[in-house]
Amino acid sequence: MKILIVYVHDEEKSFTSALKNLAVKVLTENGHEVKVSDLYAQKFNAVAGRQDFEELSNPDYFNYMLEQKNAAGKNIFAEDVRVEQEKVKWADFVIIQSPVWWFSTPAILKGWFDRVFATGVTWDFGAIYDKGLLRGKKGMLSITTGGPHELYKPNGAHQATIEQVLYPINRGTLYFCGMDVLPPFVAWATFGVGDEGRKKYLEEYKQRLFDLENTEPILKHV
Amino acid sequence: MKILIVYVHDEEKSFTSALKNLAVKVLTENGHEVKVSDLYAQKFNAVAGRQDFEELSNPDYFNYMLEQKNAAGKNIFAEDVRVEQEKVKWADFVIIQSPVWWFSTPAILKGWFDRVFATGVTWDFGAIYDKGLLRGKKGMLSITTGGPHELYKPNGAHQATIEQVLYPINRGTLYFCGMDVLPPFVAWATFGVGDEGRKKYLEEYKQRLFDLENTEPILKHV
Repeated sequence: MKILIVYVHDEEKSFTSALKNLAVKVLTENGHEVKVSDLYAQKFNAVAGRQDFEELSNPDYFNYMLEQKNAAGKNIFAEDVRVEQEKVKWADFVIIQSPVWWFSTPAILKGWFDRVFATGVTWDFGAIYDKGLLRGKKGMLSITTGGPHELYKPNGAHQATIEQVLYPINRGTLYFCGMDVLPPFVAWATFGVGDEGRKKYLEEYKQRLFDLENTEPILKHV
Repeated sequence: MKILIVYVHDEEKSFTSALKNLAVKVLTENGHEVKVSDLYAQKFNAVAGRQDFEELSNPDYFNYMLEQKNAAGKNIFAEDVRVEQEKVKWADFVIIQSPVWWFSTPAILKGWFDRVFATGVTWDFGAIYDKGLLRGKKGMLSITTGGPHELYKPNGAHQATIEQVLYPINRGTLYFCGMDVLPPFVAWATFGVGDEGRKKYLEEYKQRLFDLENTEPILKHV
């Protein structure tokens, strides 16, 4: 498969980096083609705005969604957006490697979705869910959390499972655009589990990466 | 009350802007003190990073959460972060005025939470939920959506209510930090409802603003 890893961390000694490096190694060794979007290293601009388009269809009333739609038709996205869109189109499988911050994505990753997953490119009016423009592709979150798994159990402090927490990304973004979505790989409390715990996560993730093509999606279009 | 409005739009003719302007007017007329954080106008940096601190406790291994904790103790946050933190501390009530993008916040707003709601400032180790550092304050989302309310009903296309969708912000962020959270004010499908529909939303919002102090929270610490 052609696999895009979107990597979200600015410390190369981080565990998020270790998970990303492992994935590049294992997936390449298994014959997949791998590209990495390293958002921090690329200094990816997180903030959607007028600069995302070579020209505007309506400079007097800026509507981001309509400008995306216009830009998609004319292929006039700004260079940094277009480069990422090409990677998404190229990929059969997208892995998001990121910490969870505030039960969501760090802003730099949210900005990647805001700007790259444009109207007319990954979805369109009348083209969502099973008609989404990324139909046929698969996605998976590989995430690290601060808190342990216990907090994310129905009676835990957060009173929501990780699946509920991740709704906006897994269902609201990836599945919305037509992708099938694999269960997230979650390394819980990576800060607290120590070297042994982190080593175990790397082993588990390696296994997941080997089984990628046979892993049953949790969200699947029919 | 002292009220902070965090405003997230870069088109001053937008409906989001109209809702913000209405709130400033109505709340001021009703004797409240109002401050506005206009994230786009401020060119607020969305991306958490080393630049958020005047100095680092560990430059050789950058851990954002630990640097926040360190900076909180020494009050060495970068100027743009500190200014926003002061506003949050000042406020009795925080209103977030934003469109919903990808079932979540636009990246610039997510970055505001990532950077401003720092460890040691809005929450701390052992100080979450009813021990959160923003205890005693209230928060409310005032949001606009692209899709109509029908899509957000249990049998709607999104298969989640707006309360479920907003979990990471309402419960995962505001309530997590000790705030009580009011029901969101939602202007559904503002693009599709026409001038009449939008006028009606402004009327409804005005009423909500009048009733702010008597509105029962949906998430309340005991």
